[in-house]
Amino acid sequence: MEEVKEGCDALLYLDEKRKYLVKVEVGKVFHTHKGFIRLDEVLGKPYGSTLKSSTGAGFVVLKPTLYDYIYKLPRKTQVMYPKDAGFILVRAGIGPGCLVVEGGSGSGILTCVLANYVKPDGKVYSYEVRSDFLSLARKNVERCGLSSYVEFKCKDITKGIDEEGVDAVVLDLANPWDAVLGSWKALKGGGSFVSFSPTINQVEKTVEALKANKFLDVEAFELMLRPFKVKAGETRPVSTFIAHTGYIVFARKRLT
Amino acid sequence: MEEVKEGCDALLYLDEKRKYLVKVEVGKVFHTHKGFIRLDEVLGKPYGSTLKSSTGAGFVVLKPTLYDYIYKLPRKTQVMYPKDAGFILVRAGIGPGCLVVEGGSGSGILTCVLANYVKPDGKVYSYEVRSDFLSLARKNVERCGLSSYVEFKCKDITKGIDEEGVDAVVLDLANPWDAVLGSWKALKGGGSFVSFSPTINQVEKTVEALKANKFLDVEAFELMLRPFKVKAGETRPVSTFIAHTGYIVFARKRLT
Amino acid sequence: MEEVKEGCDALLYLDEKRKYLVKVEVGKVFHTHKGFIRLDEVLGKPYGSTLKSSTGAGFVVLKPTLYDYIYKLPRKTQVMYPKDAGFILVRAGIGPGCLVVEGGSGSGILTCVLANYVKPDGKVYSYEVRSDFLSLARKNVERCGLSSYVEFKCKDITKGIDEEGVDAVVLDLANPWDAVLGSWKALKGGGSFVSFSPTINQVEKTVEALKANKFLDVEAFELMLRPFKVKAGETRPVSTFIAHTGYIVFARKRLT
Amino acid sequence: MEEVKEGCDALLYLDEKRKYLVKVEVGKVFHTHKGFIRLDEVLGKPYGSTLKSSTGAGFVVLKPTLYDYIYKLPRKTQVMYPKDAGFILVRAGIGPGCLVVEGGSGSGILTCVLANYVKPDGKVYSYEVRSDFLSLARKNVERCGLSSYVEFKCKDITKGIDEEGVDAVVLDLANPWDAVLGSWKALKGGGSFVSFSPTINQVEKTVEALKANKFLDVEAFELMLRPFKVKAGETRPVSTFIAHTGYIVFARKRLT
Repeated sequence: MEEVKEGCDALLYLDEKRKYLVKVEVGKVFHTHKGFIRLDEVLGKPYGSTLKSSTGAGFVVLKPTLYDYIYKLPRKTQVMYPKDAGFILVRAGIGPGCLVVEGGSGSGILTCVLANYVKPDGKVYSYEVRSDFLSLARKNVERCGLSSYVEFKCKDITKGIDEEGVDAVVLDLANPWDAVLGSWKALKGGGSFVSFSPTINQVEKTVEALKANKFLDVEAFELMLRPFKVKAGETRPVSTFIAHTGYIVFARKRLT
Repeated sequence: MEEVKEGCDALLYLDEKRKYLVKVEVGKVFHTHKGFIRLDEVLGKPYGSTLKSSTGAGFVVLKPTLYDYIYKLPRKTQVMYPKDAGFILVRAGIGPGCLVVEGGSGSGILTCVLANYVKPDGKVYSYEVRSDFLSLARKNVERCGLSSYVEFKCKDITKGIDEEGVDAVVLDLANPWDAVLGSWKALKGGGSFVSFSPTINQVEKTVEALKANKFLDVEAFELMLRPFKVKAGETRPVSTFIAHTGYIVFARKRLT
Repeated sequence: MEEVKEGCDALLYLDEKRKYLVKVEVGKVFHTHKGFIRLDEVLGKPYGSTLKSSTGAGFVVLKPTLYDYIYKLPRKTQVMYPKDAGFILVRAGIGPGCLVVEGGSGSGILTCVLANYVKPDGKVYSYEVRSDFLSLARKNVERCGLSSYVEFKCKDITKGIDEEGVDAVVLDLANPWDAVLGSWKALKGGGSFVSFSPTINQVEKTVEALKANKFLDVEAFELMLRPFKVKAGETRPVSTFIAHTGYIVFARKRLT
Repeated sequence: MEEVKEGCDALLYLDEKRKYLVKVEVGKVFHTHKGFIRLDEVLGKPYGSTLKSSTGAGFVVLKPTLYDYIYKLPRKTQVMYPKDAGFILVRAGIGPGCLVVEGGSGSGILTCVLANYVKPDGKVYSYEVRSDFLSLARKNVERCGLSSYVEFKCKDITKGIDEEGVDAVVLDLANPWDAVLGSWKALKGGGSFVSFSPTINQVEKTVEALKANKFLDVEAFELMLRPFKVKAGETRPVSTFIAHTGYIVFARKRLT
């Protein structure tokens, strides 16, 4: 049974709305509105155990998953949602061992997802032109323990991609169409192009660029995720939710 | 550049509606409504190349991705869609190195997705009570080259799970609530329970069982995927599509 | 051109988020965060004119439509949304001249919609068991100028309906199934039953009761309304919205 | 109780998929795959009665509602769906007594809806440039018994609107933006502009024209209607459905 160790991250779970990501360290105290928690009390206990706060509230200590990190890591940009990230992985054939180019890194959340799924033998080459974003992305990837699977580049991906023969290029840019030709050059034959954009106009321009540049199997999608309030005899969709994150465009490179 | 070799699978792509999964073998001829193709002509060529049929139609030769297999493998059951499978991976923290229990195997499509994403160091234990399904699932996993990451069991998962300390249990059963207690026993602390069901009633029963059996972070979702017809100045959602596949329930094990 | 008269309602429109429903009266001053407005300045001007506040902000004076009233009238209950109300009208064949039974009145918003569309020759019989709701519903209907098309009844509709041969029965109750038999008796042959409910469980119970009680053409729907943010080159669905109001069940009475 | 009379329309209902619109006439026989029906047997019976075919199948005789006509009338164009038509009525404040301009008439289905809801004192002025469409629209409106509420005009609505002071203009055109200025002239102050279009690009152009032409309260929506398969314990959305019909743009005229 995996135990909580000094220096590890833990997710303290009170209820669905109140989850806290903490680093467990000797002598550290975590304050909540339900009293304080001595974090070193959890050292040596298995994940899944319950820890009592000073007021007696029970916090379950979970090992953070990538999903938890996605919601808890600091961000300076709109970040990729799990529903979109998961579909990108499967639709684009991105998995263990793949070489993936990402542009731009943004807050590094999608970088973490990509790195987690190409490991242990794959690699993510992540381009970002803004150094403040790059710095945050780097920290977030490190927090998730994924640094050895990512190479960050402080470069504008629309100016060209250094790598060749990669399995996929994944873009979350304002102007993805400007990176279409460079993506074609970087991809292996049959390799996957992916672009995420919030507006229809970006989708149109990207699709046009793809069709003009030897890509095939061009498709565009929107994913809507509806959370449900489930209770026997009272089940219904929740009343409000994130209704739109963005559209995803997919394509594959043909050689001729 | 990766070349097509004898015995490999290839996806022959004519357009978005017409894609054919073939095994490339010397002397083999593939017949289409656009004439026939001598498959051995593609041997030694890089993926992404175009092959001419006897009538001059151009088929692009792609290396099939997991996504292509999902749509092309034979099935005897309703199968998991990529949108749902991708979200399951990310939401449940299933990735390289994970130990995952699946029940039931069905046609083995979700088994392939799980196996592809736990490789090279993880393992999928897939339970299926019907031997005809098991046989098909085994063949499909083999076709995808993922057999070494899957152990099939001709057993009823609602009767108990042999494994312990697993990272996730993923169910696609008519009666998932009957496997909730067994899932709890098989999971490590904080491990993920996932269940996919087409009806609301199944969701309600499963959620009740989870809440009665030391699970937390219980959530239910529906994912809707809308494909778009993209053309400059004429972009719109396609008129009809798969509007409902199923609901996904997630939860995590607490120890006490 | 229709002019604003003493005692009339007006909608003061500043922008899409800021619309105010006021009664125009001599000497009345309306205070906004953009300064005050002397309402009698608008007397005699045509609807559609712009009125300046004391700080120079321009408020357009509109004649309130039923739609404006729906959003501006006071309410004590969850109210029917226009998307659902409009579909109910067309799907159930409710229009000018119809006799409609409603239960319960709630805040009277749906009563207003029904009354507006059966006028001038139809009638709405609206049942409500709570006198505080009934009182509010009555006031709201009066505010919309629709009192002569509505007869309110302080009665529990599940105990029976006084009317016979009506064109439609429209229910917005916690337990619509208890009013199914009474609805059958009240309806003319082929008449429409409508029920609005937030949960799936209510839908199931209602549909079962309908099938057991000589109704046909039983259908259930959910309507989702997505508002868009439209700007040339930046168009996208808004990020969050009312994702679920309720399900609507329709049926028609058969005689034998 | 309303009885079926010679020359009336009736909807013969077998089940949800099989509904037939017929004109009841003495001596007329209607053939179905379940045998034939002597229509004059239903004369004098109340709507809601059941009629046996020659093979003993029971057809319930319903008085067709506007909703039935929408699905059963012949059409040469894509027609307005009830979900969209109902929302247009309520959102735009179109009801009994209103004067409404429509362009184009198309197959006349929306014309029927508008006419049905402005009656008995309102009027629909319906513009259509194609005489074949106009002829069909006229027939369909007549079949619904709504001719006295409609004035058809074989004119291009983008060239100008004859009426003034109307309550609403409703467009279902390929180029609605070309009718925006004319709509402004035709509308009363505060009057409603409505436009229905299948593509995002049409929405963008229309919204731009509205903002440039003294309209306010400009909003755009998409309505999605999900039918459900309801059965106790097995309820779920149906698997495929009409996922997109079009976007609806609303606005109101300001004078200055």
